[in-house]
Amino acid sequence: MFAQIDHVGVAVEDLEAAIALHEQTYGLALAHREVVEEQGVEAVLLDAGESHVELLRPLQPDTAVGRFLASRGPGLHHVAYRVDDIDAALDALRDRGVQLIDETPRVGIRDSRVAFVHPRSTGGVLTEIVQPAEGH
Amino acid sequence: MFAQIDHVGVAVEDLEAAIALHEQTYGLALAHREVVEEQGVEAVLLDAGESHVELLRPLQPDTAVGRFLASRGPGLHHVAYRVDDIDAALDALRDRGVQLIDETPRVGIRDSRVAFVHPRSTGGVLTEIVQPAEGH
Repeated sequence: MFAQIDHVGVAVEDLEAAIALHEQTYGLALAHREVVEEQGVEAVLLDAGESHVELLRPLQPDTAVGRFLASRGPGLHHVAYRVDDIDAALDALRDRGVQLIDETPRVGIRDSRVAFVHPRSTGGVLTEIVQPAEGH
Repeated sequence: MFAQIDHVGVAVEDLEAAIALHEQTYGLALAHREVVEEQGVEAVLLDAGESHVELLRPLQPDTAVGRFLASRGPGLHHVAYRVDDIDAALDALRDRGVQLIDETPRVGIRDSRVAFVHPRSTGGVLTEIVQPAEGH
């Protein structure tokens, strides 16, 4: 069902420093930058083979990523798997008793359709599923 | 320099439950299972496109992953990037002032050569670089 890793999400305090690390030191190409108001973040995607690294800067402290930074500090935030059909994937997860944060998909970065799965059902790993928009 | 994500490392308390989640619910194929004594873990690799998910069960509480579980609970542990030449990659990281945990590569899973970069230099992300053995 999950074909590949779409991205690894990283919560950052200093977005420009994180971009410099990933672009200049690691040699990953910056692919996209977007404020995703619905998720309360400014997000940056860098290409890493067929996957991406997604840097997440909270727009406000009172957001999911802002609260994560306050409690755990910067670092790995979530892993996202790419799927062809997010509606079918959510149905399959529900059928298997997996607890969802998002019962229906919402709009993610680059007009993708995304949903988060509760870490309670996934061994503590905040897990996202992503159906990219056509062309991505 | 970093071509792609080699794997995402996940610290687990219940390895069999984590395998079942990734194999049966997510549909990822189990690729490899190995006790890596030097790192104090039993590790399982599952295929996810060109990358892997690496499940890590500590062999003892007094290991890096055991201490991680005790302090943070199960969840995302590290991200690993694949490189062609780990010696050159370590030299390049050192030249750019990145703090290394391993100054020289050590043997990782499936006879890969691996080294860890200190999260202090990487925005809190424990980062591994991996040069796979020939044939992997």
